[in-house]
Amino acid sequence: MKKSNLSRATLGRLPAYLRYLQDKDDEYVSAAEMARAMNMCEVTVRKDLSRVSSEGRPKVGYPRRELISNLDELLGKRNRVDVVVAGAGKLGQALMRYRGFEDFGLHILAGFDCEASRLNPHSDCPVLPVEEMSEFCRTHGVRVGVIAVPEGSAQTVCDTLVEGGVTAIWNFASYSLKTPRGVTVQSENLALSLAHLCLANGKGNDGRIQT
Amino acid sequence: MKKSNLSRATLGRLPAYLRYLQDKDDEYVSAAEMARAMNMCEVTVRKDLSRVSSEGRPKVGYPRRELISNLDELLGKRNRVDVVVAGAGKLGQALMRYRGFEDFGLHILAGFDCEASRLNPHSDCPVLPVEEMSEFCRTHGVRVGVIAVPEGSAQTVCDTLVEGGVTAIWNFASYSLKTPRGVTVQSENLALSLAHLCLANGKGNDGRIQT
Repeated sequence: MKKSNLSRATLGRLPAYLRYLQDKDDEYVSAAEMARAMNMCEVTVRKDLSRVSSEGRPKVGYPRRELISNLDELLGKRNRVDVVVAGAGKLGQALMRYRGFEDFGLHILAGFDCEASRLNPHSDCPVLPVEEMSEFCRTHGVRVGVIAVPEGSAQTVCDTLVEGGVTAIWNFASYSLKTPRGVTVQSENLALSLAHLCLANGKGNDGRIQT
Repeated sequence: MKKSNLSRATLGRLPAYLRYLQDKDDEYVSAAEMARAMNMCEVTVRKDLSRVSSEGRPKVGYPRRELISNLDELLGKRNRVDVVVAGAGKLGQALMRYRGFEDFGLHILAGFDCEASRLNPHSDCPVLPVEEMSEFCRTHGVRVGVIAVPEGSAQTVCDTLVEGGVTAIWNFASYSLKTPRGVTVQSENLALSLAHLCLANGKGNDGRIQT
């Protein structure tokens, strides 16, 4: 199973499967049993697991240890991805404190800001001067950067990240970034997420939406 | 055109169309001309506009004023949606300050928190005691609530919102909320968004991802 073929929805469910499996002792686990215990749709669990491992056997299930090992691999537990956050305002700080990144093998290494009052070099997740960002990324081999600065500074900050070797940018500024080939930009429009929820609600949609 | 039939992607482009049209004087505008000026794909613009208005005429284009009026309507400019934010920590505050909600006719009316040090009743967007949240929602007819509290308090806060008449909940806590029928919950997993970006980047995807 290649990691890159996983859908976003499947990926989102993997940390919960992993936690469930780690809490068990059995040699084998079945999709039906997991679905029941986790209050999920059996078809979904069955499909997800078949994408994660090819070791499933009818009437027996999956060997639990191998499944854990596959999930560990897919979730990058053995190959942590380091991330930097540009901008340590409210949003940047919220992201730096957001638990849940570790579930996906992502680790926020440092934040960067241009305001002296926000610098905090001795914290677990230090906030450093933005002038050091490019060099920091190069030194630590960081490939993923988050942009949480006002739109007026977004392009400059983006250029600095790219200069430091970053190839994947998660952009919270409402600014259409220009990047060289080989750099992926994902723009996060928080307002759009909320607007879309309101639409779904207006439709009389009763249930869950997972973005 | 029913608002609820718009895709998330189309919805996301509407504010930019509106801004473009408001800056023009012409009586008619064409999709081709807009696509060129806005550096967008003509097919996309053509499709979007056909969803927004049925007034387009071959070789002439769309009557600009009617198009603006349609967009105003779709973006809720004449029918603002009021929103409350539960939790005024870093994330809650970041959301309260996030510009861009107004683009979609969304207006954050107030935030609520249980910590006295975070209360700020006299701000433009006041932060009030969480005990007042349910009553506030009822009084102001608020139907949309954002949950930006730790997972341990998410269900309680959710129940309070529902009690106040809220029917659409945007949930940032990593907790699976239980809600009565008729209440829509959209869970936002920020870690998943970043993990998904890293996957896309690993694939060698070169370009833009709009979530």
